[in-house]
Amino acid sequence: MKFSIGRTAFTKGLNTVARAISTKTTIPILTGLKLVANETGIVLTGSDADISIETTIRSDDPDNMLVIQSEGAIVLPARFFTDIIKKLPEDTITLEVGENFQTLITSGQSSFTINGLDANNYPHLPEIQTTDTIPLAGDLFKQIISQTVVAVSSQESRPILTGVHFVLSENNLLAVATDSHRLSQRKVTLENPINGTYNFVIPGKSLIELSRMIDDVKTEVTLSVTENQALFVIGNTLFYSRLLEGNYPDTTRLIPDSHDTQVAFDSPDLLAAIERASLLSHESRNNVVKITVDPDKKSVTIYGNSPDVGNVEEDLEPKTVEGNELEISFNPDYMKDALRSFGQATINIDFTSSLRPFTLTPTEESESFIQLITPIRTF
Amino acid sequence: MKFSIGRTAFTKGLNTVARAISTKTTIPILTGLKLVANETGIVLTGSDADISIETTIRSDDPDNMLVIQSEGAIVLPARFFTDIIKKLPEDTITLEVGENFQTLITSGQSSFTINGLDANNYPHLPEIQTTDTIPLAGDLFKQIISQTVVAVSSQESRPILTGVHFVLSENNLLAVATDSHRLSQRKVTLENPINGTYNFVIPGKSLIELSRMIDDVKTEVTLSVTENQALFVIGNTLFYSRLLEGNYPDTTRLIPDSHDTQVAFDSPDLLAAIERASLLSHESRNNVVKITVDPDKKSVTIYGNSPDVGNVEEDLEPKTVEGNELEISFNPDYMKDALRSFGQATINIDFTSSLRPFTLTPTEESESFIQLITPIRTF
Repeated sequence: MKFSIGRTAFTKGLNTVARAISTKTTIPILTGLKLVANETGIVLTGSDADISIETTIRSDDPDNMLVIQSEGAIVLPARFFTDIIKKLPEDTITLEVGENFQTLITSGQSSFTINGLDANNYPHLPEIQTTDTIPLAGDLFKQIISQTVVAVSSQESRPILTGVHFVLSENNLLAVATDSHRLSQRKVTLENPINGTYNFVIPGKSLIELSRMIDDVKTEVTLSVTENQALFVIGNTLFYSRLLEGNYPDTTRLIPDSHDTQVAFDSPDLLAAIERASLLSHESRNNVVKITVDPDKKSVTIYGNSPDVGNVEEDLEPKTVEGNELEISFNPDYMKDALRSFGQATINIDFTSSLRPFTLTPTEESESFIQLITPIRTF
Repeated sequence: MKFSIGRTAFTKGLNTVARAISTKTTIPILTGLKLVANETGIVLTGSDADISIETTIRSDDPDNMLVIQSEGAIVLPARFFTDIIKKLPEDTITLEVGENFQTLITSGQSSFTINGLDANNYPHLPEIQTTDTIPLAGDLFKQIISQTVVAVSSQESRPILTGVHFVLSENNLLAVATDSHRLSQRKVTLENPINGTYNFVIPGKSLIELSRMIDDVKTEVTLSVTENQALFVIGNTLFYSRLLEGNYPDTTRLIPDSHDTQVAFDSPDLLAAIERASLLSHESRNNVVKITVDPDKKSVTIYGNSPDVGNVEEDLEPKTVEGNELEISFNPDYMKDALRSFGQATINIDFTSSLRPFTLTPTEESESFIQLITPIRTF
């Protein structure tokens, strides 16, 4: 195997597959990256067994300055190899595999010889038929991920809750996550109806990495799903994630269909006040913030308290207040995560009682997105 | 005590004294910051016993929007109080100390009550006569710090080597640091001769913090020194550092006064090559990079090696090569630190033999700045 390549294109490809490579893996060869030179170009692969990323640097794109002199494959130590490529002195790099997988990398006057591994020992990626694919707009899918992944559980005690549950059929996409203290649900109407129905759970960690790869607003993402794998295709890059096994709990009955008290806020205003109150609640053993709603006085007041440090009280100016008087306590960190997911929007908060979950929805399009938070009993 | 103040000025002052406040201190009151309101303005103090910083926010500067209604003093939890001030909703803040050191902080609709401590229990800062002061140009002093502090020892086994040794008399300032493997020495001619002679050692950590406070190129710094303390005055801020006790070793005889081989490089070019070579040496147990100098061929070659990963070889293009053939090995991290301290300058490297320390000096003004590195014996 021998080729020369532009450093910029090579570095970009290496950074892409590096997202999947962990130094903590128990499978030694997975600390390496696989490099294949074939008639199309250079195919780079990285994997941590949960996520695998494969990207192709094409010979037919002149920006890549790629010339393949002979085909072949090698596995090289990922972090180390990437560091070398970034620090090489010239804009073009030549790579040649010699005997015993010794790989010579040259650029200008600098020449590195590093020990590679036999690419035949690198695990095979899952084989996924891409005949039935679901097209997704990159920016929308990135938004769906960021809005739901906040509610994913970080506890491995119920593995299924560490993922986001997707249900797709006809024109409808539903994404739900819950860690049993809070829930986030997003509904989207797809531009084109899809064939069949899909029901699967993708690990939150995979979605976070995937989201980072969708840079461009106009990126088109296509999704293919099998029994235990999802494949996302983004341009010249393939992103594989395993699916979580098991049945996701039925979440539809958790969302209340009526309310007794409703307040409306601009999300950033309420977020700033919760951040202030949580400065104090974080110093306390039980991280709790309390709000009181008084519809007669059109007032909402927020309280945070730490016996060691002190307390905070703030009168808020809601856009509207309706229904019954209420006093309710909650974890401010859940509230902050939820409020951030609404961006600049105006939101409605619907309460039933001090001990029942409450919901946050955008005042416009309240059907499309809902965040639910379970209160904390303080008496 | 009661006053109102602009948030921007207050935050700036709090950030300044926060540099001296450590959460790891064994003296509980030092996790707090002292706040004094007097006829001049607000005086903030932070200290970790090694470093103390006192800054004054003056009432007569309209930018500070400071109005003092009643004088007094209080100690407040530093990190926590600073976080509150940063997050308050309005541009002006009111602070009032009530009974039992309870302190009320209000801004807009937000009101915090936090538990303060009696300011009488806060340690007194050293008293330093500022009759004999040494004026220093801020940008020059910052450069002296950055050039010498790299060679300060991080080992507490010889405490005196954790500081930079300053010797001042008449027009001359000499600053030296060594960790016994390398040495850095800077000489400066002062604009105005000073009275008397000074000989003291300031902890490297103090100098690093001090350097971060000298932002502005045109900042004037004045220095006063006592038996065991140094005081730097920068505008409205006082920076106190303890001095290290003991005699600094005589370093003058360490610097060789002749050489048998000399090479010249642009510092950034050599730095880039050493960084590449150290990628490999860092993977090896003994972190060593080797260079060979061949004056007949006008060539300098650099080698790095790791038995596990591979090796690197690079032919460098020195600006000049003179003297005897040479092969020498050294710790590339010392070399990188040294080269960075020369910025963009052209430097001479003077060697005596493979086992004797070698020096780096700027080709222009070679008397003013010298970095010395002890080689590593590899045979």
